[in-house]
Amino acid sequence: MTTRVNRRIVLASRPNGAPVPENFRLEQAEVPSPAQGQLLLRNLFLSLDPYMRGRMSEGPSYVAPVGLGEVMGGGTVSRVEISNHPDFRPGDVVAAYGNWQDYELSDGTGLVKLDPALPHPSYALSVLGMPGFTAWHGLLAIGEPKAGETVVVASASGAVGSVVGQIARIKGCRVVGIAGGEDKCRYVVDELGFDACIDRRDPDFAATLKAAVPQGIDVYFENVGGAVFDAVLPLLNVHARVPVCGLIAHYNDTALPAGPDKLPLLSRNILTKRIRMQGFIISDHYGPEFMEFLRQMSGWVGEGKVKIREDIAEGLENAPAAFIGLLEGRNFGKVVVRIAD
Amino acid sequence: MTTRVNRRIVLASRPNGAPVPENFRLEQAEVPSPAQGQLLLRNLFLSLDPYMRGRMSEGPSYVAPVGLGEVMGGGTVSRVEISNHPDFRPGDVVAAYGNWQDYELSDGTGLVKLDPALPHPSYALSVLGMPGFTAWHGLLAIGEPKAGETVVVASASGAVGSVVGQIARIKGCRVVGIAGGEDKCRYVVDELGFDACIDRRDPDFAATLKAAVPQGIDVYFENVGGAVFDAVLPLLNVHARVPVCGLIAHYNDTALPAGPDKLPLLSRNILTKRIRMQGFIISDHYGPEFMEFLRQMSGWVGEGKVKIREDIAEGLENAPAAFIGLLEGRNFGKVVVRIAD
Repeated sequence: MTTRVNRRIVLASRPNGAPVPENFRLEQAEVPSPAQGQLLLRNLFLSLDPYMRGRMSEGPSYVAPVGLGEVMGGGTVSRVEISNHPDFRPGDVVAAYGNWQDYELSDGTGLVKLDPALPHPSYALSVLGMPGFTAWHGLLAIGEPKAGETVVVASASGAVGSVVGQIARIKGCRVVGIAGGEDKCRYVVDELGFDACIDRRDPDFAATLKAAVPQGIDVYFENVGGAVFDAVLPLLNVHARVPVCGLIAHYNDTALPAGPDKLPLLSRNILTKRIRMQGFIISDHYGPEFMEFLRQMSGWVGEGKVKIREDIAEGLENAPAAFIGLLEGRNFGKVVVRIAD
Repeated sequence: MTTRVNRRIVLASRPNGAPVPENFRLEQAEVPSPAQGQLLLRNLFLSLDPYMRGRMSEGPSYVAPVGLGEVMGGGTVSRVEISNHPDFRPGDVVAAYGNWQDYELSDGTGLVKLDPALPHPSYALSVLGMPGFTAWHGLLAIGEPKAGETVVVASASGAVGSVVGQIARIKGCRVVGIAGGEDKCRYVVDELGFDACIDRRDPDFAATLKAAVPQGIDVYFENVGGAVFDAVLPLLNVHARVPVCGLIAHYNDTALPAGPDKLPLLSRNILTKRIRMQGFIISDHYGPEFMEFLRQMSGWVGEGKVKIREDIAEGLENAPAAFIGLLEGRNFGKVVVRIAD
């Protein structure tokens, strides 16, 4: 036992703006031994998600910051190696909230056993896990799309946006994605079935988006902020809904952008168009609603109505680079790290 | 008949920034004669409300602009002078959507007969009319205050804000008003029963507001925008609700304010605190909901649980000055013009 190694990635320093490789450090430690009532988990897949950027900084947010020298946290799919717990057996595969490392101790709290027949266990980190639940709750409970309405979603090829758009199509909406690059846009339309997709790097982005939504925008699923939101705001319809799920364009901000101050412009739009803008954090909503999501989404995935593309990084040591790439939009699909087979 | 005069106030020119007296012109016309099915109304009281500023400008808003040379519109309490309509008799007193003038023709559409025993018919323009309905709907349907929560309302001595705060007190909330000047603040606390009121002219306004809401803010009823909202934003609690009813600080803006751009700051607060910010326009909500409002509010007014202070301008010719004063916050209570006895 003591000869095995637990590799782990800790927060070495806090980023000033965009994270750099030096903010992370790969360490080695002994593999821990489970006490009575505990399990030893072998992490197989690690989920990388934009919200983790927030945890790298100090200061108030909706998740506590990671301490300097602490292991970075994240969702995992893991295999039970040793069980001193009556509910789990070696070989069980579970979804867990773990860390960027090879092995975890667990007392079983929060573990979700996965069906061993599942063709893609890593889907528990995407379409059948937190990002899928985020898309499902945010679009349906806050966005409240109605058939015939126009739904616009940014980060349309990403883990959340791709699912938002596919659900909106199921609900009979016209769906316009926004993504970074022609290849992503082609995928969003050809593979995911969106009605259109606009490249946010297009120099005429705002005009192109406007042309793609001749009836205006009824639901804008906000993942991004920044220039994308600036282009969306004048196109929002009366009684539009804006679920605010993420603001990746601002996660690396170290100060407020230069003026003019567009806050009054937003307030005025909210007032005159009776817009509802509402933030949400999916961790507030686990419980019965998650089970309902899982039931419905498993059906859609099984029927091929909702697809997901994974962007898999090989090896725990490549997690920092994959995470930095995610914040820069260099990924193509849901970013997952394969830690072990 | 033809010797009588119908005085009326028309929009002479569009304001550039704050309205000035020259934007209005008092004209005289003949009193019109009602055709079959029509009524001649004598306007007794005219309501002046901040939303009218929007109608003086061109450009998209939620109400159509008044044309140059057209009579300014507004809610009135009026007496039927001549009736060629089976449902009305001379002497009936009605609430109407009329104009800034002595006489109106009407075909009866939208008229609401008032109880002749009503001690204050002008209340149909305030606590029992549009501003009261605005307060009631915005606070209860969007703000959803719960007993023990903290509710903050700006323009706390005004037609809408004063009612918002009194309803919130009825619902068991801690209520903090914001008003312009010590006399208004004293009135809000001593007469209306708010728990506290902060003078927005206080040089330490932001710190004083913070000290007045030790549990943070659960509902902020937005009437103002500008520096008041800047002070409120960091005090909003997780799951706060922000009904957006008005933005009087910005109605005279001719350009966006200088930077930095605080829009991303607002978005970030909406996300991390799961805030719901929602605009509304009360004209969307008339119908059965208005009757329910009228029933409940009449009870509260009768029991003395909701009070209103009127700031009455005498004479139609003084309507422009009273309106300019309203936008500058020089009124004290609901602004009504007495046109005739």
